[in-house]
Amino acid sequence: MSPNLNVPLGTYLDTRKKIIDEALERYIPGEDNYPPVIFKALRYSLFAGGKRIRPILCLASAEAVGGNIESILPVACALELIHTYSLIHDDLPAMDDDDYRRGRLTSHKVFGENMAILAGDALLTKAFHLMSDRGLTEKIAPEKLISVIHDIAAAAGYFGMVGGQVVDVQSEGEAVDTEVLNFIHTRKTGAMITAAVKAGAVLANAGEVELNALTSYGRHVGLAFQIADDILNVEGDQKLMGKGTGSDTKRGKVTYPALVGMDASRKKAGDLVEGALSAIKNFDHRAEPLRMIAAYIIERKA
Amino acid sequence: MSPNLNVPLGTYLDTRKKIIDEALERYIPGEDNYPPVIFKALRYSLFAGGKRIRPILCLASAEAVGGNIESILPVACALELIHTYSLIHDDLPAMDDDDYRRGRLTSHKVFGENMAILAGDALLTKAFHLMSDRGLTEKIAPEKLISVIHDIAAAAGYFGMVGGQVVDVQSEGEAVDTEVLNFIHTRKTGAMITAAVKAGAVLANAGEVELNALTSYGRHVGLAFQIADDILNVEGDQKLMGKGTGSDTKRGKVTYPALVGMDASRKKAGDLVEGALSAIKNFDHRAEPLRMIAAYIIERKA
Repeated sequence: MSPNLNVPLGTYLDTRKKIIDEALERYIPGEDNYPPVIFKALRYSLFAGGKRIRPILCLASAEAVGGNIESILPVACALELIHTYSLIHDDLPAMDDDDYRRGRLTSHKVFGENMAILAGDALLTKAFHLMSDRGLTEKIAPEKLISVIHDIAAAAGYFGMVGGQVVDVQSEGEAVDTEVLNFIHTRKTGAMITAAVKAGAVLANAGEVELNALTSYGRHVGLAFQIADDILNVEGDQKLMGKGTGSDTKRGKVTYPALVGMDASRKKAGDLVEGALSAIKNFDHRAEPLRMIAAYIIERKA
Repeated sequence: MSPNLNVPLGTYLDTRKKIIDEALERYIPGEDNYPPVIFKALRYSLFAGGKRIRPILCLASAEAVGGNIESILPVACALELIHTYSLIHDDLPAMDDDDYRRGRLTSHKVFGENMAILAGDALLTKAFHLMSDRGLTEKIAPEKLISVIHDIAAAAGYFGMVGGQVVDVQSEGEAVDTEVLNFIHTRKTGAMITAAVKAGAVLANAGEVELNALTSYGRHVGLAFQIADDILNVEGDQKLMGKGTGSDTKRGKVTYPALVGMDASRKKAGDLVEGALSAIKNFDHRAEPLRMIAAYIIERKA
């Protein structure tokens, strides 16, 4: 399962996505379980064509320090479960009130608000159930596993993703400066992306210097990813993004382009990618996927 | 911190509740953290006068097999965080739509639906962050800790509490038989209570026979607790219960008394408590708190 570095980025990402999709398929019970609606609901959102960026980053980070990805798959997939739960809850009428996500109706539009809330709760809970499954993670040293669970919970919680969403919700329609926008972006998106990169490194037994370098890579890439998302929201192809472009502006959400302009946003994203690449400049060819992903983040069209 | 078994039950429970409240106070950041609203919201629900039955059961189970409760406190408190999150989400307009809980306005009535959803998400996430905090759980063997995290996640997830809530929500206003009601009760309340008792036993290094006995105790007590709740909902003191009595009937929720009558419900609860006591009949005086709690569960007035 070691990456073929002579393939184009698209093929690399597709291959990785397939590995993750197949693992998720194994880990998540089918719709023949009782009560079926909850498995239908969480599978509807989980298998909705997500890019699997967080698990892919986790695996690529492990590979960059010579780790084997097989034993890390449960943790990588848990990151996607947490990401998916956050999208379902963010889309709820009481939050962003979005009808569409990735070109499909949002969970609450299909299954009702109550089931969407519960599907999110179930996915978040399953993430920790999956990471603590020793039948799947037996090759990981127990203390390392606990430390990764702890880091991921921190990144997902009130000082991470939830905290970012709280400030995001509170800031709607308010005048927001770059400090607040940076807070939202680093917490809401950045924290989990950094945790993904860090988890892969820790589980692959990275040394302290490597771990710090990869954590720095994760921080840069995480913020770049969110700024690129802001840019895509303004000018992206509606069909590719799956929801109305300009939807952030309509909703009174502040974005990087709105605050500093499109040119400065593009420059900022580019600088962050440069920073990410610089952080891992001493890594050998095994870090090539991480380098490709960093470039992809600001070049993607959806 | 070993229990004084010559004190009355009320004093025992008060002393234990105080230990748990103080630990939760240490573990959960204050309202001076940013963004304040999320810490206000989760503290509002967490310190609302809950009985702390799940953590108390966890500690009592550990004591029954000679365990020290100090190192188990983070796991015991995590059970209360998960319980509190489930109450906040259950009360939401899209779910049970309750305005009051324990005599106070529910979270979404005070902080809005969006913050109530996020406060629940934050509490659930914090539960796993707390259990995986090796600064607090250093005396627990790592494999035991992982196994307990796994069990608790299972009890909270789609085959446990979330699954029970899904069927509960789906069954509102429907004709429900005892099989379905048993499913709801064992999943929605029973699973986490059983997990609490089991966690205490595992963390206190219970042997296989003891563990099976305590798990059986937990199953019996868990179902008895929910039937007693149903009975209290029909005839309890509104002031003590903190929400309208008869509220389940008004909402079209099926309860034990509605299905089999009040006398048969009381008998069922009594039989379950007998079963719980029988499961731990070979335990010595250190299981006295567990025996007292089993009796308390059907005698309580709120």
